Order: sequence, then C-alpha cells, then structure tokens
Amino acid sequence: MWLQTSCDLLFEIAIPTPFVLMLRPRSGALQWIAREEYKIVPSLPVMEFTDNYGNLCQRLVAPAGNFSISTSSRVMTADSLDRAPGAAFVEVQNLPDAVLSYLLPSRYCEADRFGQMASQITAGCLPGYDQVAAIETWLRNTFRYEPGVSDLLLSAQEVNHQPSAVCRDLAHLGIALCRSLCIPARMVVGYLHDLYPMDLHAWFEAYVGGRWYTFDATQYALSETSRKGGYVALGYGRDAADVAIFNQYGPAVFPIEQHVTVQLCDSETD
Amino acid sequence: MWLQTSCDLLFEIAIPTPFVLMLRPRSGALQWIAREEYKIVPSLPVMEFTDNYGNLCQRLVAPAGNFSISTSSRVMTADSLDRAPGAAFVEVQNLPDAVLSYLLPSRYCEADRFGQMASQITAGCLPGYDQVAAIETWLRNTFRYEPGVSDLLLSAQEVNHQPSAVCRDLAHLGIALCRSLCIPARMVVGYLHDLYPMDLHAWFEAYVGGRWYTFDATQYALSETSRKGGYVALGYGRDAADVAIFNQYGPAVFPIEQHVTVQLCDSETD
Amino acid sequence: MWLQTSCDLLFEIAIPTPFVLMLRPRSGALQWIAREEYKIVPSLPVMEFTDNYGNLCQRLVAPAGNFSISTSSRVMTADSLDRAPGAAFVEVQNLPDAVLSYLLPSRYCEADRFGQMASQITAGCLPGYDQVAAIETWLRNTFRYEPGVSDLLLSAQEVNHQPSAVCRDLAHLGIALCRSLCIPARMVVGYLHDLYPMDLHAWFEAYVGGRWYTFDATQYALSETSRKGGYVALGYGRDAADVAIFNQYGPAVFPIEQHVTVQLCDSETD
Amino acid sequence: MWLQTSCDLLFEIAIPTPFVLMLRPRSGALQWIAREEYKIVPSLPVMEFTDNYGNLCQRLVAPAGNFSISTSSRVMTADSLDRAPGAAFVEVQNLPDAVLSYLLPSRYCEADRFGQMASQITAGCLPGYDQVAAIETWLRNTFRYEPGVSDLLLSAQEVNHQPSAVCRDLAHLGIALCRSLCIPARMVVGYLHDLYPMDLHAWFEAYVGGRWYTFDATQYALSETSRKGGYVALGYGRDAADVAIFNQYGPAVFPIEQHVTVQLCDSETD
Repeated sequence: MWLQTSCDLLFEIAIPTPFVLMLRPRSGALQWIAREEYKIVPSLPVMEFTDNYGNLCQRLVAPAGNFSISTSSRVMTADSLDRAPGAAFVEVQNLPDAVLSYLLPSRYCEADRFGQMASQITAGCLPGYDQVAAIETWLRNTFRYEPGVSDLLLSAQEVNHQPSAVCRDLAHLGIALCRSLCIPARMVVGYLHDLYPMDLHAWFEAYVGGRWYTFDATQYALSETSRKGGYVALGYGRDAADVAIFNQYGPAVFPIEQHVTVQLCDSETD
Repeated sequence: MWLQTSCDLLFEIAIPTPFVLMLRPRSGALQWIAREEYKIVPSLPVMEFTDNYGNLCQRLVAPAGNFSISTSSRVMTADSLDRAPGAAFVEVQNLPDAVLSYLLPSRYCEADRFGQMASQITAGCLPGYDQVAAIETWLRNTFRYEPGVSDLLLSAQEVNHQPSAVCRDLAHLGIALCRSLCIPARMVVGYLHDLYPMDLHAWFEAYVGGRWYTFDATQYALSETSRKGGYVALGYGRDAADVAIFNQYGPAVFPIEQHVTVQLCDSETD
Repeated sequence: MWLQTSCDLLFEIAIPTPFVLMLRPRSGALQWIAREEYKIVPSLPVMEFTDNYGNLCQRLVAPAGNFSISTSSRVMTADSLDRAPGAAFVEVQNLPDAVLSYLLPSRYCEADRFGQMASQITAGCLPGYDQVAAIETWLRNTFRYEPGVSDLLLSAQEVNHQPSAVCRDLAHLGIALCRSLCIPARMVVGYLHDLYPMDLHAWFEAYVGGRWYTFDATQYALSETSRKGGYVALGYGRDAADVAIFNQYGPAVFPIEQHVTVQLCDSETD
Repeated sequence: MWLQTSCDLLFEIAIPTPFVLMLRPRSGALQWIAREEYKIVPSLPVMEFTDNYGNLCQRLVAPAGNFSISTSSRVMTADSLDRAPGAAFVEVQNLPDAVLSYLLPSRYCEADRFGQMASQITAGCLPGYDQVAAIETWLRNTFRYEPGVSDLLLSAQEVNHQPSAVCRDLAHLGIALCRSLCIPARMVVGYLHDLYPMDLHAWFEAYVGGRWYTFDATQYALSETSRKGGYVALGYGRDAADVAIFNQYGPAVFPIEQHVTVQLCDSETD
C-alpha cells in the first residue's frame, strides 16, 4: 500500500537549544520512500549523520522563539505483516555480527532480569518465532493498552508493575523478554496506518528464522497467519533511548503542538 | 540559494538487470535537502544501503522492457564557494583516520605517477590550499574543457595526453596531482546551477586547513576570493569508479534518454 | 610505564555454550600493545569482529567439559593520568557525531533520572572538566569503595541507595551524572597497576575540552594535577552491558577460576 | 597447522616521516592469532585504527635515523585450501552490501577493460567457482612466475603485456578478470608457508557460492580438490593500493633490510 505520512512539531524555545532529530525515514527491506519533505522554520544550518543503527539523524541548534519542523513522506509498505509460525530460533553462534548487540540489556529493556518470566510465558513453545508470538499474545492479554503518550519513559521492569501501558511500554517489555531467551529484539518507532488516535507509534522486531519480523502487541491478529500491515519505520535501535524522534539538550523543551497524519493513497503520486 | 534539481533516466532493458544507483542526495556540511522524490517505473522492490563513503545507494533488478527513474530534489546550497588562500597543508600524521584513504591512488587517479609533475605545477606555492589552487588554474589553462560526456572513462594518465577533457577528466587529473603532494582529494558528482549545456557534473574536493574545499577547473574564478556556487552533491568517492550514478551488471545498458535540470527557486517551497 | 598483564579464566561447561569475549586490548591514543597472547584450551574455531565501539570481540562455542582462556599483553601506558582543570564543556552542537551516543541513557546509567542531583553536586563548578572532577570527588567521599566483584550488576539508581560500591558501580553512577549534564561519558574495563586486591577493574572517561579524560573514584588523587596512571583498557562502551569481558548465552556459567596479574616491567621485552 | 611468522623492517630515515603500517594480522574466518608481537625501535607514539576493509592500521611518525619494526605472530591456519568446483555464481542482486565494492575497478585492477578477455578464458565454464579456477589456471600457464618484488607496481593492463610476473601482478590480473565477470574479488597480502624464496606474498580471493575462496596462481594445484594451505593474511583490500604493508609519505624511503620468516610449529606454544 502507498501511505502519505506527516509529522509536524512546534516548539517554543527559550534559549538556543541543540537538537538531534530522527525524522527522515530510510528505504529498506520493508519500505520504499518515494517522496520526502523536511522543512524547518526558521531556516538554519542542519548537519546529518548516520548513527550506529543506520538511522539518519539531523543535528541543529534551534534559536530562541518559535521553531517548527514539518516532515512528510510517501511510502510503499506491505498491506500485511509477514508471519512465520515455526520459524526457528537462530543459535547465538550463527547470528550475524551486527545482530549480536540486540541481545544485550539496554536502558529500558533490562533483559538480564526477565529470564524466568520469559520461560514461563513461552513454556511449551518451539524455540524461535513461536516464542515471540507467545510473548506478544501475553502482552496483549495482560496489559490494558492505552493509546497516547506517557510523559515518563518507563523501563520493562517498571512497566511490568502497571495494569496499563502505552505502545512503547509494550515494546520495551516484549524486547526484554525476547532477549532473555537469546532472541535478538529491537525497537522501532514510526507511523502506523489506521492507528487510533493517530500519533507516532512504537513496536518491536525479533530476529528468528534468519531475518527480522515485526511484532506489535497493540494490534489484533486477524488470524494465525494474517496481520494488518501499514507500518512505516523512522528509526531502529535497542530501545527508546536510541530512537527518540528528537533528543534535545539543555533545559527541557516539549512540543507545544505535535500533529501526525497517515493517509492511504491510490498511487505513488496522487 | 534554493535549487530544484531533477534527473530522469530511461532504459530499454533486454534481460533482467541488477543496478546499484546513487541518485539520492544527502544533507551534509554543504547542502540541506528539503524535499526529494525518487520514482521508479515499473514499481519494484528496492533496497538501500550506505556505502563506505557515506553515500546512499539503491539496489534493484530492472525487468525486461522500458525502465525509468525520475528523481528530483529541493536543496539549499551556498551562493559562492568558500575560498581560503593560505590555508595550511595538513601533515599526514594530523589527518583524521577517515581521510587517509583519500591519499591512495585509485582506478582513475594514478597518484603514484604524478609526483614530479605536481611539484613543477605548484613550484613556489605555499603548501596547502595554494597548491590546489595552482593545480586548478593549471588544469583550466592546459585543457580545452569540452562539456558533455565521453563514452570512455579515462584515467588521469590518459587524460594527461589529451588536448581536451570533460569535467570528470579534469577532476581525475586534479585529484591525482593533489594526492601526489600528500593532499587528500576526492571526487564529487552531482548538479551545478547554470552549467551549460545542463547535465550531471563532476568536480573535486581537497582537504586543506582542516576541512574539505571544493575545486572545479571547468568554472571561471570570479576573483581570488570569490567563486560561483550552486553545487549539489549526489555522491563522494575516490574517483568515478566509486560514484557512478548507476552501476549496472551484465550486458552493457545505456540510458536511451537522460534529462537533467537545475532551477533557481525563490524559496523552499515555491 | 611498561606493564605485563594477564587474565586467565577457567570454566566448567555443562553443554556447548556460545561466548562473546572481549579480552584483546587494542592500541589506541592511551596505550600501545607490544605483545599479546590469547590461548584457548581446548583449541577450537574462533571468529573475531569489531563492535560498534571499536572493540575486538571473539566469538566461539565452548564445548562441554573444562574450558580455559589465557590471555596476556605487554603494554606501554602513561605513568600518570592527564588532568585538565578548567578544560571547557563542549556544547552538544560541537561534539563529534561518534561521541553523541555517549550522551544517551543506557542500561546501567539512567542519565534521564539524575539531572537535579548532578546540578547539586557540581554547583559552582565551571562547566566541563571541573564538573566531572567534582562528581568524582563526591563519589569518593560518599561511597565506601569495596574492592572485588558483586554478583549482581546494579544500575546507577540502585547504586545510589547503597552505602558501598564496587568499581563498576562507581563508574555507572559517575557516567549517569555526567550525561545528565550533557557531558559524554563512557565505561572502560581493563587492568590497573597496583590495584589491591588485584582483579579486573572498571572506570570511566568523560569528554571535555575536546578529548576523553580518565576518571576513577576508587583511586586517590595525589594532588590537584597529578594522578597515578597504569591503566590498560580492554573495552569501551556505554556501560557494563557493552563491555562484559565475556557474554555467554544459555544456562548461566561462571568461571570456576579467574586470575588476573599486572606487573611493572623495566622494558618492552624483559 | 601452527605457523610462526615474522617480518622485520629496517629504515634509514632522513627527515621525520609519517607512516601507515598494516602489519598486525587479525583473527578471522580463516586464521586464529594466538600470539603476536609488534616492536618499534626507537619507541614512539603509535595510533591504531580500523580501515574500511577491517584491517588494523598503525600510524606513526618515524624520526630521523635508524628506524626498525619487528613483528611476529603465532597463527593457526588451514593445511589445505578449501576447493569447491561447481560452487555457483552469486547474482549481483544477492550479494551482501559489503561485498559490492569488490566488483568495482580499482587502481591496479582495471576490470572495466577485461570483459572480452575474461569471457574467452572462461568459455564453457559453469558460472562461479569454475570460472575463477579457469582464470587461475590460465594465469599459471601464461606467465612465468618470478618470485621476488618488482620495484614498480604494475596494473592488470600493464601486467598483461609482460611475459613474467610477480605474485602481486598475478593477483591483480586475476582480480580484474573476475570482476569483469561480476565475480567480487579482493587482494590479500600476508605470509605463505614454504614460499621460496621466503618473502611477503600476495594472492586473491573470489566470492562464489556465498563465501570467499582463496586463489593463488603462483602455487601448483595438488589435484582438482586439494591445494596446499599455510596462508596467513595481513590485510585485505581492492588491490595493492589498499594493502600496502607500509605507506610512507614525503620523500620516498625504502627498507634497507627486510626479513621475513614462516616456520611450521608443533603446537601453539613450542
């Protein structure tokens, strides 16, 4: 499907403030960027670099006053997610070098503390894809999903004591559980078609059967083998610390407006 | 200045043919990409990766039949090039690690064979920027610049025996001469405003005084300290082997149409 | 000074177990490796790769039975640590791209929760080196340093509630405090001459005044401008999650013997 | 087999001269470094970095006077080379990203000029391994191999006009021929057991059947499926420009002594 995404942010800046942004989606195995816009007002110098995870990051210093960022993209992405029940666990010695770091615990995914719990949740599952699917189902059944954004970033351990969770929380806990089983898992932030209420979204990917698969405990499975697609990734990383759509340094600044849209398009250019 | 660039390519493909393309400009120290489009007809899967030089490369397999690529971008770039007469030669031991590979000879820049000639051309110059400026001037005065594209890629040694040269040839010879003086130099391909006749363009950069400076023997110096700008880079590399806007594998295929435009814009979005 | 270091590990393995080891020191800005040995018994295939932080990592699958690793190195390192009171805070916009990730919170350094505390500890300090020095002094004065290894890896938040701490704990808390002030900080594991009791050691580095400086709250300052050296780094990373000297996957395995030595040598080869 | 290698270089330096050396072998898929020494006299600061090809490179400035480098290593490497007649050609679209650059022409391997010749040499061969084996055989039968080092680095085109060739020449021509058939090929420099006369050596690797295979036209095939091993790699790259064991900048300096040994050992530590 072709999707048109947009994300507009407006800040009121008190003193010149350095930002690192992650708002430029990249073409990859799961999506193709046919058009993309990135507008900053007022106009100012921006540097771009590629981080350790392959994300394009924009560096700038926002001046005092109103500061706005408007981005949009036209993206081809899959109508439905790939599912692979039975896809095998990849033994650690056979993982590609670049995947190994996704086994380590990270700021919001204390994988080192979830071994026993993960074993219980996945008891009886074939190692690999089926374990991750069981974790996803457990997350969906255990937490009341509350769309929206919480102010405070919670770690998997903290999430585990709450009755409800935002998308990011469920991803963090899912990742921590996967890693504790030696399944590489990573965080993705981006857009999702038909998300309600519309906003930026977070989900996770797990590496089984020799590739990354998408999992999202906030969405319902249509069936064992069919899952709604419409995902557009902005960034990949170990957890939310790596894939903030903006990191800002100095006194805290929050967007006074944030507007996100995702629209289905008939074609690449309509 | 804001420029609107476009590059359209049309191929007639006999058998399915793998391509690696380099047609997505990146934001960097010298340019900011505010809008960008990349359209492929027929639509097909494309993978993108970042090469050793930081360029975004698109991989695909073109099917038999007509195959077209249409790209465009809206870019902020400098009105005039930075000039720095007197900027110092950076001793090799003080070069950043990542710059060292631009001292080595490469396919079309046989730096190992130009030591004596470079010394003669730059005799009496202060080491650094002034040597590169002398090389640029020598290139401009020595070769009849013939706009357009030659079919055969010539190396610096081959160019050196010709009376005339295309932009790529002059860049190759300039790079070879710089490197033979231990000045890192690299090739850039991209767009140039007001180039006549309009086409893709090639120039080179040299690392002196702690940064990269742009040089282009095909353009006239307005004065010692002022040079026309309007450059938009698509790719950086050691020489033309690294920065082909398309590499295609299997029986040779040439575009049956290639159309390039660069237009000056009043603003980011007019 | 020339140091001879060694680290010998002996494991009793129940089932074939994949390991990723980080036991090969690299030559760098602060140390030169003149000789190095890495012996594995029984002999088996080992792959080596460079991780995101530049560390050399060894991958292997240990077979069931006794499994030993013996490493040693002859290293030139500084007699005393560089000190730089007054060295300036580097504004975020001026940090090298590769340093930015050391500002982010990480598994054991919840920098996002220490802003207020760091401000209090460093009240009145010049931004930069002096802030880090104040943090180091505060750590030294606040915690009872307990040499040795704790079984459980604690995060900075957890450490902050304890009266005593191992070297790794102090590094984690120091790093979290630095990052909360927008000072990049990273974990180092390795060897330290004259450490008592002898063992592997952990400390941290902070990026101020345009370079990395070493800090270690477990050691006494000889004076404002003089600090004992003798450090040999094995690995660099965000925190202990990145620089484990071994990561092992599957049922937990601990060394049944671990022996570390660091000896002062008269020369490179005595 | 366990090999003990050494390479000693002695220079007489007139003025302080920057060097980049590539004399530290790395453990990899085909070799394991159990012990390694790297001695520089006089002692001086050395920096080490990893280049684009994964090689460890040492940077230093040699002072005026005598300057010597002594390196040695104890290495496990295969007794015989892997052979794989019939191993398939990997279509370009299926090559890993990191392998693509080994298809490009380079300084000493003008792959863009060898298409027709490569087709003739490999006429009738199955695409893939068998083509490379045919090229290797053709090189062996066509050129008189002259052990030793030629002063001038020749490119594949230049080699092709000579009756005799050193090891490096044969590797360059072999690489150019492979690449012209869309088979990735790279240069390796290092040590070879039983080479006569003993010296540093150069050979090449080609990527077929999903991995790199070693080829060396200077050595005789024991049979279709058996080839003498004993190779120890120091560096990998596109061609000799990337894998010089030393690059030196400023007025040319040549070793006044160069001594290389490779000895078979009974074990890791005898």
